[in-house]
Amino acid sequence: MIIIGELINGTRKNPKQAIADKDAGYIADLARRQDEAGATFVDVNPGTTGDAEVSDMQWLVQTAQGVTEKPLSFDSPNVRAIEAAFEAYQGDATPMVNSITLEKEKMDSLLGLVVDTGANVVALAMSDGGMPCAAGDREETAKQLIDKLVEAGVKPERIYLDPIIMPLSTDANVGKYIFQAIAAVKAYCPQCHITCGLSNISYGLPSRKLINRVFLSLCMMAGLDSAIMDPLDEQIMAQLVAADALLGNDEWCMNYITAGRAGKLEG
Amino acid sequence: MIIIGELINGTRKNPKQAIADKDAGYIADLARRQDEAGATFVDVNPGTTGDAEVSDMQWLVQTAQGVTEKPLSFDSPNVRAIEAAFEAYQGDATPMVNSITLEKEKMDSLLGLVVDTGANVVALAMSDGGMPCAAGDREETAKQLIDKLVEAGVKPERIYLDPIIMPLSTDANVGKYIFQAIAAVKAYCPQCHITCGLSNISYGLPSRKLINRVFLSLCMMAGLDSAIMDPLDEQIMAQLVAADALLGNDEWCMNYITAGRAGKLEG
Repeated sequence: MIIIGELINGTRKNPKQAIADKDAGYIADLARRQDEAGATFVDVNPGTTGDAEVSDMQWLVQTAQGVTEKPLSFDSPNVRAIEAAFEAYQGDATPMVNSITLEKEKMDSLLGLVVDTGANVVALAMSDGGMPCAAGDREETAKQLIDKLVEAGVKPERIYLDPIIMPLSTDANVGKYIFQAIAAVKAYCPQCHITCGLSNISYGLPSRKLINRVFLSLCMMAGLDSAIMDPLDEQIMAQLVAADALLGNDEWCMNYITAGRAGKLEG
Repeated sequence: MIIIGELINGTRKNPKQAIADKDAGYIADLARRQDEAGATFVDVNPGTTGDAEVSDMQWLVQTAQGVTEKPLSFDSPNVRAIEAAFEAYQGDATPMVNSITLEKEKMDSLLGLVVDTGANVVALAMSDGGMPCAAGDREETAKQLIDKLVEAGVKPERIYLDPIIMPLSTDANVGKYIFQAIAAVKAYCPQCHITCGLSNISYGLPSRKLINRVFLSLCMMAGLDSAIMDPLDEQIMAQLVAADALLGNDEWCMNYITAGRAGKLEG
């Protein structure tokens, strides 16, 4: 599983304050702990606006790269902030752009940068027609989006398709639609990765983390091979390791047994 | 989900002692607690041999039926004990025979009783050729077994096909084989139920309950609609309720929300 560590996110209270205060220790600590917990990418999201977002993004990139060699994921709706992130970025590990969509304005402003940099890219299955709702909506938008990216020169293995997670509380069939979409996208583009932010699924429900971690296992079975998630959540990480073993991705259960010896399965 | 409560099992230490001592209070308590926790069937397994097994089975049936109106599952390799269970059994709820296989001796001794009583039956995908190992083994045996039962007059909706769970520690592909077998059996006989005993999957691994509950969710996604399990294990029950909601089996998430209000999701 490819884990995109989501904790350096300026839309959340504590990171927001740390970014405002330029508290490098706080941010570096989040980067280091996510790295150590198994993040493949470390996401950096300033959560600010305008010029501040540009300079905040550069500061986040420099601060995170001071403590981790893992590639970063540049998370912003502001193309200038994404450009600034690439300028500040050091090292050979290919970073990630989070995110592009099929919306015309978004596509026009970001596609060239994604192609030119050869970066990985989170591709949200969203178009000018809005968010996907019914069965089949996600598949259709996802296929168009993948086609558009590949035609422009993005390698399929750089694409992290996100089928867009809506709350289960709004429609009991949302889970089924998502599992079907994941399987359909995986069949359409086996080299593409499939990722998602997990926590939307549980919006409005009790025991959200329970729903999130069961949802992750079921998505993995459908073909998801990446998630934008909190690698410091021991229960979801334990469930992830168990699901990987059960799905045949862990020969001799070595990762699972190693995690057990390290006390990581008891959460 | 159809839950077959597995705790009254004379092969385990405490129930074994209770059966030896004819400690009706202990057995009745296990029956009542499993009923209250959501068991659909209450399994009774004397775990003894010969004539003792026959009389122990009758005592277990009478003792359990003193406190629960849920149907029982008669669990024994001894056909005389199964016959005795039917003789002792009271009430209209259709009980279950646990279990028949495609093995000739087993089939010859039990099939008539299953047909004549109209009972539910756990059908293990096992033949005189032994336990299923490779991909496809389970499907083939399961289909033959279902055909044999249906031809003899067993209604498909009375069949609880068990694909046989082997330890993941012996072969990293066991999970995949089982998920494929479940899906294939469900496609072959949509009216049949699919059940299994969960705990074999985790034999030899650390944090067995973690593997068991993730395995349950993944089996449910493949088409499993029943399990032989411990309904008093709060963590697996919480995961089951969450998986049911995510798989679209819980309109408006009402069961999930109700379980949350009852404090059953925090395990």
